[in-house]
Amino acid sequence: MYPLMAELSSVDITKPHYRIGEVNLGEIGEWRLVELIREKLKLPRSDEVLVDIGDDAACVKLEGPSVLTTDSYLEDVHFSLRHYDFRDIGYRSLASSLSDVAAMGAEPRFVLISLQIPLETTVEDVERLYAGMIELAHRFDFRIVGGDTVRSRSVGIVCTVIGQADEPIERRGAKPGDAIFVTGELGSSAFGLYLMKAQIHTPESADFIEIHKRPFPRVEEGRLLSHSGVVSAMIDISDGLAMDIHHLAHESGVGALIHFETLPAHEGLQRLAAEYDQRAADFILYGGEDYELLFTIPSERRGTVPSRVTTKTGTKITEIGRIVEENRVELEKGGEVSLLPRRGYDHFQAENGLGSLF
Amino acid sequence: MYPLMAELSSVDITKPHYRIGEVNLGEIGEWRLVELIREKLKLPRSDEVLVDIGDDAACVKLEGPSVLTTDSYLEDVHFSLRHYDFRDIGYRSLASSLSDVAAMGAEPRFVLISLQIPLETTVEDVERLYAGMIELAHRFDFRIVGGDTVRSRSVGIVCTVIGQADEPIERRGAKPGDAIFVTGELGSSAFGLYLMKAQIHTPESADFIEIHKRPFPRVEEGRLLSHSGVVSAMIDISDGLAMDIHHLAHESGVGALIHFETLPAHEGLQRLAAEYDQRAADFILYGGEDYELLFTIPSERRGTVPSRVTTKTGTKITEIGRIVEENRVELEKGGEVSLLPRRGYDHFQAENGLGSLF
Repeated sequence: MYPLMAELSSVDITKPHYRIGEVNLGEIGEWRLVELIREKLKLPRSDEVLVDIGDDAACVKLEGPSVLTTDSYLEDVHFSLRHYDFRDIGYRSLASSLSDVAAMGAEPRFVLISLQIPLETTVEDVERLYAGMIELAHRFDFRIVGGDTVRSRSVGIVCTVIGQADEPIERRGAKPGDAIFVTGELGSSAFGLYLMKAQIHTPESADFIEIHKRPFPRVEEGRLLSHSGVVSAMIDISDGLAMDIHHLAHESGVGALIHFETLPAHEGLQRLAAEYDQRAADFILYGGEDYELLFTIPSERRGTVPSRVTTKTGTKITEIGRIVEENRVELEKGGEVSLLPRRGYDHFQAENGLGSLF
Repeated sequence: MYPLMAELSSVDITKPHYRIGEVNLGEIGEWRLVELIREKLKLPRSDEVLVDIGDDAACVKLEGPSVLTTDSYLEDVHFSLRHYDFRDIGYRSLASSLSDVAAMGAEPRFVLISLQIPLETTVEDVERLYAGMIELAHRFDFRIVGGDTVRSRSVGIVCTVIGQADEPIERRGAKPGDAIFVTGELGSSAFGLYLMKAQIHTPESADFIEIHKRPFPRVEEGRLLSHSGVVSAMIDISDGLAMDIHHLAHESGVGALIHFETLPAHEGLQRLAAEYDQRAADFILYGGEDYELLFTIPSERRGTVPSRVTTKTGTKITEIGRIVEENRVELEKGGEVSLLPRRGYDHFQAENGLGSLF
């Protein structure tokens, strides 16, 4: 998850995003809201969904190892309604949890949504929010089976995803000598956030802003990597490469050496960042919400696994470094090796992290 | 969940509950907080918990029908820090979700906690919050396997509970002629809230306040009722009897007739309520957070089921009415029959519900 630090101190009281003249939740009440959500998310009864929205709890069929994750996505902490449509917010909140499931090599099956929402919100905005989630449900073939709605002072979305994995991949399995890989490209989402907040709207910026607004969880890549049987550890990059390689190394009780020049980035990032007096490296190393997969494979076992995943998914996979024995994470850049700071977004250390970057 | 309506307009900015001099979350940071929670909730690896706190997601083994529920419990919407200790808040937030699982006739197995927490909160308060949850985990033998923590402007706790049921009981199975039952007693929790907010501290009030602060989810009762095979519909009373019998009747496409004189209540409620110029009936009918089970059994199948559940659990079970064909809920009181209003707490209709009661 991502900070919009600067905005915390300037919370918008007037809420211009709540359109006047539309029906709001205070007018329709909880009962009708639940009926409306239910209508929107209606599922046929099936062998896998025994009870869905509207009862005390949903009831589903699950067999074997089940992966469970939950995340809060809060207004004025993770996002501002000034920058995102409700549809974006719905999409982004759920995409983040799906990425956690992908990082276990699991497939999302069922989703619960706890919606914290102000009375003044319009019914239309709530519909947009769910539309963003339904977009993902269609793409990844899971079911939204339940949740709750409560009145609140600001918008909060808590997504719980239940997935299934034959062989869940943990953060803790990396061994010295393992090669480190990453899917896709790094830094584009954080740079898109920068451009969006700086209100730079050009044909070139649109691409980055779109990557930021519509992250694509690497579910299929994670599943293929899990099935390959050779991945020793995996994590998704939500707090930025630097932070998340530290997490993986810490859990595995090892260190890592990353080669800066190998790090994959959007072709336009370097040039465009320089144009706006920004350092591309900061976005690549410390920018959060890439939602790419960072994983390790023992050198002798890698074979054609990365290239086969690329062939099947169209997603680039790049080798970016190696696991080492010493408990430290280093960055090799232009022939020089230095410690890679465990920096990125930390929800509780306001003086740390990306807050200072933007 | 329960309103503290009056308090919404007087949010306490100074936060006197955050003790000065104790270490707060802003000082220790997210990483160390997660380590601390992990230490507190540490589980042995087992066949049922393959991966717990600290990875992208937890991984557990589940077989057969799984029950899923999630609920947000928010400061200044559901509770005020002026009235509850962090331990109470932890306990109450989770007890509410456990009650939803009990209402399906399921047993809680795994729990995820999404914690939304201000930077100024002390580490000690976070520990108390989890202690309240651990109290329930010991009592009902489930595991807290994961979650997340995010910075926020006010405290929010979102509990997701995954349970298992051989035969989940829905709200929708009630048929005309079925007898209606309720476990335990009604109205004590709402009256306890009234006494607490009115700052009435007497030996007699302590009992009600304790019932309010430590609701006991009817997990064992729900399980036994599910196993009996005769229960046609079930719901937990969280929004008050009137509201929840309406929910059950609506889902089942039937109506109900409730006999007021049969409704079970604490022996001291009538007298004590009168003493403070309150109407006991309002607490019994419309008071929320009883967390008792409301269920139906076809008349010819009831046999000794209710009395056997009472024998095994010590929990009183009372017959309070009958399901009828016409789509309306009525109350018989002193020989007179009138419509029972669908009233109680509704999160989005501020002009409705218990807000006006207190």
